[in-house]
Amino acid sequence: MNIIMSKTITYLQRVEFGDCDPAGIVWFPNFFRWIDAASRHFFIECGVPPWHETEKTTGVIGTPLVDTHARFVKTASYGDVLHVRVHVAEWRDKSFVQRYRIERVNPDKTGDEMTLIMECEEVRIFAARREDGAGIRALPIPAEIRALCS
Amino acid sequence: MNIIMSKTITYLQRVEFGDCDPAGIVWFPNFFRWIDAASRHFFIECGVPPWHETEKTTGVIGTPLVDTHARFVKTASYGDVLHVRVHVAEWRDKSFVQRYRIERVNPDKTGDEMTLIMECEEVRIFAARREDGAGIRALPIPAEIRALCS
Amino acid sequence: MNIIMSKTITYLQRVEFGDCDPAGIVWFPNFFRWIDAASRHFFIECGVPPWHETEKTTGVIGTPLVDTHARFVKTASYGDVLHVRVHVAEWRDKSFVQRYRIERVNPDKTGDEMTLIMECEEVRIFAARREDGAGIRALPIPAEIRALCS
Amino acid sequence: MNIIMSKTITYLQRVEFGDCDPAGIVWFPNFFRWIDAASRHFFIECGVPPWHETEKTTGVIGTPLVDTHARFVKTASYGDVLHVRVHVAEWRDKSFVQRYRIERVNPDKTGDEMTLIMECEEVRIFAARREDGAGIRALPIPAEIRALCS
Repeated sequence: MNIIMSKTITYLQRVEFGDCDPAGIVWFPNFFRWIDAASRHFFIECGVPPWHETEKTTGVIGTPLVDTHARFVKTASYGDVLHVRVHVAEWRDKSFVQRYRIERVNPDKTGDEMTLIMECEEVRIFAARREDGAGIRALPIPAEIRALCS
Repeated sequence: MNIIMSKTITYLQRVEFGDCDPAGIVWFPNFFRWIDAASRHFFIECGVPPWHETEKTTGVIGTPLVDTHARFVKTASYGDVLHVRVHVAEWRDKSFVQRYRIERVNPDKTGDEMTLIMECEEVRIFAARREDGAGIRALPIPAEIRALCS
Repeated sequence: MNIIMSKTITYLQRVEFGDCDPAGIVWFPNFFRWIDAASRHFFIECGVPPWHETEKTTGVIGTPLVDTHARFVKTASYGDVLHVRVHVAEWRDKSFVQRYRIERVNPDKTGDEMTLIMECEEVRIFAARREDGAGIRALPIPAEIRALCS
Repeated sequence: MNIIMSKTITYLQRVEFGDCDPAGIVWFPNFFRWIDAASRHFFIECGVPPWHETEKTTGVIGTPLVDTHARFVKTASYGDVLHVRVHVAEWRDKSFVQRYRIERVNPDKTGDEMTLIMECEEVRIFAARREDGAGIRALPIPAEIRALCS
């Protein structure tokens, strides 16, 4: 039996007043802001250089999204501290699957330490600029990035 | 044979410079900002009062998201004009499915008029504040809203 | 006596649910999003090409902000339609002053047609990338842009 | 001679990819997002309860902005870590002045430790909901909040 462990990074995010809507809870597009930041930090924490450096070396300008599926379990509000746990669940030829689990730190010491707020699964690509300057194109998964992140 | 037609609303959105990231394309959380606006405009266009009015009558404070699945097909950039087409695909007991199709208006008159940029399918609820003030709860689909929107 | 008239553009903006905070009013950084969009539309409406085109011709990549001063007069909320009126109040050697007046369209037909929401005065520059790739630098005001916008 | 020292709080902010625009630098409305968060954290750090609590006790629902003046000195980009230093510079009858200084932590150990990115001075009020439900009104500065923050 093979057990494949994958690197998991935890990204911390405070919820601010301005992240919340008139219902007093996080306005959901903000979760995607934080997930995108967590995605980038995953690569940084694994030792991948920032995109403005990889653009000059391997051509990678970022990891745009192809598909995302999110499930919202509980609401969060300002004052909350969130943990975004992120890992790469699958490497494909020209894309990869990144999974997220956002949990809220429970301030009172009773009960569970963390509460699940939302989960998300994405398909992303490594993108380069097109030669004709019109938009972007998917690169094969760079072997050195995959090695750093697995 | 029954053909059920559902009301479809088209919401127009210009893409601005600040909506785009260092790769020069729309930063994806902004698509969810526009989808949320299109969702609300769907109800307004169907004749449902704004949430700050329904809060006083039926208790509805908004339609928070339970689940979303989006597929990104082409990139968009500033200067583009997008059409967000939205309808309710399914009414359930305490939730409903809203579907979106975002297309870009092609500025030159050759070829297709519109290009598909992204598609999204959401599950949302009608929410009220909880009596204890802690968060929100799902209401049964209000019959009068369903009637207006079908 | 000389009366100098300057071109004024009106940019329309709907206020959305997600633009508002838990107090139910527009969260103020969103006003700056709209002001930035109005600034860009001013140049577009005056006939200046988009920045991704000027980058190739004159080197201009945008008009970053040097200084801004805003005064908030009344609140706005979702459902409101705002008019952002923008013009260039002054051309300097390497910067220019852009002024904004945001007014809300009053939905009921009694009283004034518009209500002043906020005013803003900015100093901006025309920026090019630095040759060493590190950040941006101010260009002298391009004569052809000034001619189009005055 | 009286020297009045005022409490100063430092709020840390990472700059993310999505905070930057196609010119590769922070899109300026994001600075106001961070300034607003720093403003709120100032009160929290001084021991003032969050606004959803003060709403029930003193009626305070937040500190909306009346006037802001910002000066942008250097650009910042993703990967940067910013320090937002905030204090109350003046207490008036129904408003107060909050000042901010945003500095970037220089990653390399040569030269200065910090680089000034922007400065901002705001006038804010403590707001309560109006009795008629239409918008907000300014409260006299709550003595207990002033005492905690001075």
